[in-house]
Amino acid sequence: MNDQIFSHEQLYAFTCNVFLKMGCSQADAILATNVLLAADVRGIDSHGIARLAGYVRLWEVGRINTSPQIKVVHETPSTAVVDGDKGLGLLVAQKAMQIAINKAKLVGTGWVSVKNSNHFGIAGYHAMMALSQDMIGIAMTNASALVAPTYSIEKMLGTNPIAVAVPAGKEAPFVADFATTTASNGKLEIAQRKNQNIPSGWAQDKTGQTTQDAFVLKQGGALLPLGAEKELGSHKGYALGSIVDIFSGVLSGANFGPWVPPFPAYVPMPENMPGEGIGHFIGAMRIDAFRPASEFKDNMDKWLHRFRIAKPIEGKEHVFVAGDIEREMVAKRMENGIPLVSDVVKDLQGLAEKFGLELS
Amino acid sequence: MNDQIFSHEQLYAFTCNVFLKMGCSQADAILATNVLLAADVRGIDSHGIARLAGYVRLWEVGRINTSPQIKVVHETPSTAVVDGDKGLGLLVAQKAMQIAINKAKLVGTGWVSVKNSNHFGIAGYHAMMALSQDMIGIAMTNASALVAPTYSIEKMLGTNPIAVAVPAGKEAPFVADFATTTASNGKLEIAQRKNQNIPSGWAQDKTGQTTQDAFVLKQGGALLPLGAEKELGSHKGYALGSIVDIFSGVLSGANFGPWVPPFPAYVPMPENMPGEGIGHFIGAMRIDAFRPASEFKDNMDKWLHRFRIAKPIEGKEHVFVAGDIEREMVAKRMENGIPLVSDVVKDLQGLAEKFGLELS
Repeated sequence: MNDQIFSHEQLYAFTCNVFLKMGCSQADAILATNVLLAADVRGIDSHGIARLAGYVRLWEVGRINTSPQIKVVHETPSTAVVDGDKGLGLLVAQKAMQIAINKAKLVGTGWVSVKNSNHFGIAGYHAMMALSQDMIGIAMTNASALVAPTYSIEKMLGTNPIAVAVPAGKEAPFVADFATTTASNGKLEIAQRKNQNIPSGWAQDKTGQTTQDAFVLKQGGALLPLGAEKELGSHKGYALGSIVDIFSGVLSGANFGPWVPPFPAYVPMPENMPGEGIGHFIGAMRIDAFRPASEFKDNMDKWLHRFRIAKPIEGKEHVFVAGDIEREMVAKRMENGIPLVSDVVKDLQGLAEKFGLELS
Repeated sequence: MNDQIFSHEQLYAFTCNVFLKMGCSQADAILATNVLLAADVRGIDSHGIARLAGYVRLWEVGRINTSPQIKVVHETPSTAVVDGDKGLGLLVAQKAMQIAINKAKLVGTGWVSVKNSNHFGIAGYHAMMALSQDMIGIAMTNASALVAPTYSIEKMLGTNPIAVAVPAGKEAPFVADFATTTASNGKLEIAQRKNQNIPSGWAQDKTGQTTQDAFVLKQGGALLPLGAEKELGSHKGYALGSIVDIFSGVLSGANFGPWVPPFPAYVPMPENMPGEGIGHFIGAMRIDAFRPASEFKDNMDKWLHRFRIAKPIEGKEHVFVAGDIEREMVAKRMENGIPLVSDVVKDLQGLAEKFGLELS
């Protein structure tokens, strides 16, 4: 596996051009590219430019609309439901966060449940939009079913991530962004490419037994909720994934559970779908709706500093706070470039050819 | 270990009388008893009447105030910070939920961060208060540090539970209520009483190695975040526990991280505490702030039914939704009574003697 290195600028320009060729406005192409490339620089390779060809295929089969009328269909002072009109989730979620922020400015918090959307990239990007406003940002999304509930052999939930971003003063902020499973599907895909076994606890086979086979999802297997097994709390990960599904899907009128539409355009849609598209849930809380921002930031700095200097286990340099590893990766990749595996480069070359673009 | 069986009525009357003897008003004694006994009938034995003697000891050393002036010290239309005035968390959290519900009636959602409080019983009780209002209820609390972050040997977080209750139509509601660790401290205590080993993944020793020793917390060990180890996602459980701590402690002005006051009255308080008491975070979201309640309930029923009929693993009768096991336990214990272990019965007899009450 020889990774090829690209600069952020190269990939940014290329991605933006692909979105333009798909019919996005210039403003929308930039917004969508910002989210997608944020995944690559943060080291979440499964959710960045590796997905670009997938978005194009969804657009080709009519499941992504690149000139959507994104609109509020129901609201109160602190809530809204947004209809994404089949737009790129990358964009729809940003508009939803903007609405949440505006509501938080007026009444303290804003909460937006979104239907009729598509894959929104990394949850963390949307949550982090709140930071510059001195707000706590929250973002979650449902996704097509890959995860078996505790005691089940059926795939019922997506990897349903949760992101929470909390502003601070002098310290770097707290940014949690995680799938509610033991491991993301992206990690399984890496093991597949390297033909490696996966750790026990990531997946089960079609009978519900833990397996180390990285290809098990194609043979009736499923990912496992955070906790891995009942004795270690998998019912808690299952509950978390359920909460994300209910807030994103049931509250908005999107699809939920096993009816969430698949990301790969070639996979048939589930039958008798109860809602529209996939769903997100986005929140913003003004910190000075609770206490003066300067007091909060002083205490948040104290929190962050104390956790960052917690005594590490022997052999570990230090203890991380959520978001620290991704922040280090951003510094590294903006400097040294972004490595892409050959399959992804091949996909991008295919897109370059399709749209008459250069991947230089 | 011979458990002794008591009826709900017996324990209810006794508990209520103890709170009255502590100086609670009749109304407050009833409210506090409702939460405490809800734990026992739901099968969460570590958080029910087993804690009553602990509350009395905290009251005796002046850490619990039984005639508190619970008040809002900061607010916006959708938010508030409540000062619990050292009241019983059992009561303070209910008042906070009432404030959240009132705000949700006016502006769609209500979010209350609480400082200067004490242990609030089971999070699920407070979250479930929203159900009868056709609202989603959320409750979380921080607690004294027993949990080591990923890669750390220091106890930095409490077991920091999260509860989310979602109303439904004909189906029984969704009620998640779980510590953000692989196992609660209560489960360790059960293993200690039985002199049994604990499963790998529940706790680590003072060097950070996984251990099966149920007594390890007394020897410098720590509980592990949900996920148990890095490879299985313990950094996600650590992030969840952090979010609960920040929302409950930092947002309100309560203590946080390693500074949260301990539940046992004989354990010295941490030095240089940055806040007041322990903190909670309480939320209520009106479902018709998002979509008509009847539509939501129809879809929620569909969600609940679909998960309850998911195909089980061979040997398991069926798949549970969050709250199902506790609901079955309520039916059983209201009918057959509540078993208490001898240590708890001895504690209660001590209280009966102290206050001149009958434990009949």
